[in-house]
Amino acid sequence: MINKELFSTEPDTSKVRVTDSFWKNRMEIVRTKVLPYEWEALNDRIEGASTSHAVENFKIAAELTKKGLVGKNDKGTTKTEGAQAVDTGEGGFKGFVFQDSDIAKWLEAIAYTLTWHKDSDLEKTADEVIDLVCAAQQEDGYLDTFYIINGIDKKWTDLKNNHELYCFGHMLEAAVAYYQATGKDKLLNAMKKYADYIDSMFGPEAEKRHGYPGHEEAELALVKLYNVTKEEKYLNLAKYFIDERGKEPNYFTEECKERGEKIPTIEDLAYHQAHKPVREQEAAIGHAVRAVYLYTAMADVAKLTEDKGLMDACERLWKDVTRRQMYITGSIGSSHLGEAFTFDYDLPNDAVYGETCAAIGLAFFAKRMLGIAPKGEYGDVLEKVLYNGILSGISLDGTRFFYVNPLEVVPYKNHMDARFRHVKTERQKWFGCACCPPNIARITADLGSYISSSNDKAFYTHLPIGADSEATIAGVKVEVSVTGNYPWDGDIEVKINPETPVSFTYGIRIPSWCDSFTAEFNGEKLNASLNDGYLLVNREFKKGDVLKLSLSMETKIIEADSRVHADHGKITVMRGPVVYCLEEADNGRDLYLLSLDADASFKVSKETELGGINALYTTGYREVKKEDDRLYRPAGAIEFEKTKLKFIPYYAWNNRGEGEMTVWVQRKS
Amino acid sequence: MINKELFSTEPDTSKVRVTDSFWKNRMEIVRTKVLPYEWEALNDRIEGASTSHAVENFKIAAELTKKGLVGKNDKGTTKTEGAQAVDTGEGGFKGFVFQDSDIAKWLEAIAYTLTWHKDSDLEKTADEVIDLVCAAQQEDGYLDTFYIINGIDKKWTDLKNNHELYCFGHMLEAAVAYYQATGKDKLLNAMKKYADYIDSMFGPEAEKRHGYPGHEEAELALVKLYNVTKEEKYLNLAKYFIDERGKEPNYFTEECKERGEKIPTIEDLAYHQAHKPVREQEAAIGHAVRAVYLYTAMADVAKLTEDKGLMDACERLWKDVTRRQMYITGSIGSSHLGEAFTFDYDLPNDAVYGETCAAIGLAFFAKRMLGIAPKGEYGDVLEKVLYNGILSGISLDGTRFFYVNPLEVVPYKNHMDARFRHVKTERQKWFGCACCPPNIARITADLGSYISSSNDKAFYTHLPIGADSEATIAGVKVEVSVTGNYPWDGDIEVKINPETPVSFTYGIRIPSWCDSFTAEFNGEKLNASLNDGYLLVNREFKKGDVLKLSLSMETKIIEADSRVHADHGKITVMRGPVVYCLEEADNGRDLYLLSLDADASFKVSKETELGGINALYTTGYREVKKEDDRLYRPAGAIEFEKTKLKFIPYYAWNNRGEGEMTVWVQRKS
Repeated sequence: MINKELFSTEPDTSKVRVTDSFWKNRMEIVRTKVLPYEWEALNDRIEGASTSHAVENFKIAAELTKKGLVGKNDKGTTKTEGAQAVDTGEGGFKGFVFQDSDIAKWLEAIAYTLTWHKDSDLEKTADEVIDLVCAAQQEDGYLDTFYIINGIDKKWTDLKNNHELYCFGHMLEAAVAYYQATGKDKLLNAMKKYADYIDSMFGPEAEKRHGYPGHEEAELALVKLYNVTKEEKYLNLAKYFIDERGKEPNYFTEECKERGEKIPTIEDLAYHQAHKPVREQEAAIGHAVRAVYLYTAMADVAKLTEDKGLMDACERLWKDVTRRQMYITGSIGSSHLGEAFTFDYDLPNDAVYGETCAAIGLAFFAKRMLGIAPKGEYGDVLEKVLYNGILSGISLDGTRFFYVNPLEVVPYKNHMDARFRHVKTERQKWFGCACCPPNIARITADLGSYISSSNDKAFYTHLPIGADSEATIAGVKVEVSVTGNYPWDGDIEVKINPETPVSFTYGIRIPSWCDSFTAEFNGEKLNASLNDGYLLVNREFKKGDVLKLSLSMETKIIEADSRVHADHGKITVMRGPVVYCLEEADNGRDLYLLSLDADASFKVSKETELGGINALYTTGYREVKKEDDRLYRPAGAIEFEKTKLKFIPYYAWNNRGEGEMTVWVQRKS
Repeated sequence: MINKELFSTEPDTSKVRVTDSFWKNRMEIVRTKVLPYEWEALNDRIEGASTSHAVENFKIAAELTKKGLVGKNDKGTTKTEGAQAVDTGEGGFKGFVFQDSDIAKWLEAIAYTLTWHKDSDLEKTADEVIDLVCAAQQEDGYLDTFYIINGIDKKWTDLKNNHELYCFGHMLEAAVAYYQATGKDKLLNAMKKYADYIDSMFGPEAEKRHGYPGHEEAELALVKLYNVTKEEKYLNLAKYFIDERGKEPNYFTEECKERGEKIPTIEDLAYHQAHKPVREQEAAIGHAVRAVYLYTAMADVAKLTEDKGLMDACERLWKDVTRRQMYITGSIGSSHLGEAFTFDYDLPNDAVYGETCAAIGLAFFAKRMLGIAPKGEYGDVLEKVLYNGILSGISLDGTRFFYVNPLEVVPYKNHMDARFRHVKTERQKWFGCACCPPNIARITADLGSYISSSNDKAFYTHLPIGADSEATIAGVKVEVSVTGNYPWDGDIEVKINPETPVSFTYGIRIPSWCDSFTAEFNGEKLNASLNDGYLLVNREFKKGDVLKLSLSMETKIIEADSRVHADHGKITVMRGPVVYCLEEADNGRDLYLLSLDADASFKVSKETELGGINALYTTGYREVKKEDDRLYRPAGAIEFEKTKLKFIPYYAWNNRGEGEMTVWVQRKS
């Protein structure tokens, strides 16, 4: 249900300054380590890492463009069913068909970074890359190195597999972000030209193609272009892509026929969320990243066009994802086959996929849902995925990455069993398909835009992350400063400073993990009730107002719904939004032999290791191993030894070498 | 270690008459239902079943041979990496490259059947098929329809993938069996000619090819040809194939180079057990059926050539398979990826492969090991796999088959999750790759040869299956009759009737599941100790001697070695050699919520359903499902309701429609 009263705008990142002790450090790591490291990777200069060729592709495309050779070359476009790297030899395109998007996401991350740190080195590199990207653009606006290099006559012939509209979307996001951060419009103008060209090619008109992206992304990017230009046609094109998807006759089916290829099965169409119109889709299905990127755009369009039908679909899909198909870490997409959603409550911890990009996409979706209505459940999922399933994707030093995020690892199993080969036991330097690293960089750099949102009547703090924000409410400039020591501590102070006294609603989310809290406003106990998970203070605010919030933050033993077979008989530990795990480094091998009482008590210990964490200590049990020559034998007594257990935050695992890890532990009683 | 004293010959099946109440019925089902049904399947006359084309391929090959068109046709041999069906159009070969072997195994099963039932209809059909098979043979002896039809110039160019020597081996086994059963030597002579031709092509001599089968089978078949002809060259060729395997330079690697293909990886070679010489192989690896067929032949050759090195390898691999890589049902090969062994203690119950043919191959291997030395562990595994992992492969009515044998099934999971698609939730009518159905037919029809073995000084009953046997021991004809009601009852009577009094050792295996037993010889208590799992009676026997054995047969709750992660915290139930399971039909849905005390007691109930079984009743627990909108929540108390549980024999599952099934149950205490 869209509540117009509560509509909030996208916060202007440039007006949010993150000061948080937990996140600021990670943002600095992105600026000083990740982005320079990724630049090296995109240029294939990291020894022992998978090659990218992304910069090289742009160089080749720009050279061909300059020499007027585009279209005269034909390296062959190579059929790329699913994710398959291409290598068309010297002077040809190399890498995945979506390689351009790695550059785009990296540029976008730089843009966000520049909003909070005027890093002239990064900006200079970005400007040069933008020059290179623009040099590859064709007269008509077209800009995709795969087809520019390998055969431009084939463009738009394989929307289903070849990611042109996906790459377009990512470069467009970068262009908007870079313009907003720097005021420089070179890339924005180039991408606007490309968007206009795409708008001339796709749409409901008879003479246009009735296609849509094989990998959703252009939709949400077009909304950003609309937001910055206010030109309706971009919003309309986003809406067209969304509504055309899955309609009969199915575009992907027709396209396959035209290419003389096998007609896609219903499963294949579902992989692309194109098996039926999106408004009729009941469950999250297919490739998880595609799905959440689509839902993100659906929420954008639903909000901007006040489209109740589309909003209902968003809520339905939100519930399906977060109540039936989400790991406790916020990871989604449990199968490596198609990097996909599977079915309700199917959440294996070891064979998991849980792609970092899918978790990031879920954060996008959550942010959009929060932008429509500040409901606790959206914020709960957002903080869950930020502190767990996304953060696990990057090493503490910012130079190693997980694509797949397991909740249980026994290294020798993964090494020896091809069924688990997709689950790496250590973060990797880079990937041939390197969507995840730059995605982590951009969401981290853009963290400010996830913390709060506001409209003319209200300001909402969705995440109690230390930050100074500025908004204009009822015509008055209001500064809101949040300080605290989240996620380790539940004490939060919010300073609200309007330039002149002004009445509005200030809302702050009380996380669902929090059993009780106290609130003081200017030193007086505040009796305010919760509204959909938000504590709302509706009053006239004046300079120097202070809201102090104290969230009780206890270590909690958590169980999964009975329908999650993989977690049956198991429990795990959370403190605040942080999911914990056991690692071999602390608890020895054979973690599957450990168990824990459901009423165990914990000692919280502030430790400097792993970048500074609260470790949790308790006493559990270790089953005494019974090993002999009999693989099967009459059941005998089981012996347990009491043992000290140390839990560390899940996001921090595998920063001390390879070893076993598990989030879920056997429940002893 | 080979103990020459104990060497036993293969029992002559024609001198064993199975009278067993459990098995005789199944043998009759094979004769009256399975073999006629399979004939229809091989002729593609079963509606809704996968097509075979096996008979059709022979018809086409015979026609081409008759018309002198072989070699003038070229349908293209089509590269068949791994198991991949071929369809080269009208008049071309269809099905898998090993399709001929389905006919061969079906013929072999008929041969065994004819030893215990002179079924003239079956014999007539078999004679006609043999005429057809022989009509397809080439002048030089070559006989493989894939290459005869599609391009005989390509023969022997892809031993690694294209199964020529595998098909040869199966047809040779059929020829030997048919000759032994009927005295008719048409097929035997044809296959001897083919064997001579192969012997002229492969061997250590410089001018010969130094190859060996991509799928082992010819080796064990050549030993059978040696046994029936006593011509050393066949044993030598078997030994050559075994010893050449995995030597450097690797034949498969060289072959790939010659074909201009990618060089096989070490994993690819290991799939074929060709990554190193077999005597150096420490662990069972690769495609499970191939592996156990190889080990079977190794044991054959080790025994016949008294080769201690080879025997050591057999024992090492036996231990690896049965003590570290075998399901409690005797199934082996836990991964569908390569239908392969994985690593020690990796025995997932749901994602399992456990191909029926691999279980059958393990029975072959066990039989050969028993033929070398009557050790209890060989017989224990043999009876385990016969009563469980093999028998589960066929429906009680003989018309439906499992290729994959799961120990845990939740149907919707298998339907919805591509990771479990290889695990069918119901037995199938037939398979495109239909190796399993005729394999079950031949081992069932040949059951008599698994029960006992003898030599000049001893007679061993390996399985207490009701049967009348005849052997010549120390020159005297001895009849041995076993009666009882195995596997439901532990009382066994053995009548030993020599024509004249004669001294020898009579041994009968005391299964390892049996805690205590009593034995009487001619009414007097027998105090005999166990020797490697066998009760040995060493004395002069005379007409009318009777050994009565009473094995205590209790229902036992079984646990797996701690190292089997998949069974951790679980127990299962066995009674005698029979593994039990819970089915939805008896116990409702959500079997994963059920649990059982490790000291639960059982009521044994003789029931007529499912072909007559002992069902087991006990009281267990059902965890009360906690379902709400929270996927994860603070761990609360768990409620259990006491519930009646009914266990049925695992082999009998899925004979009452589709439903959940599990062998392993949560251990409550």
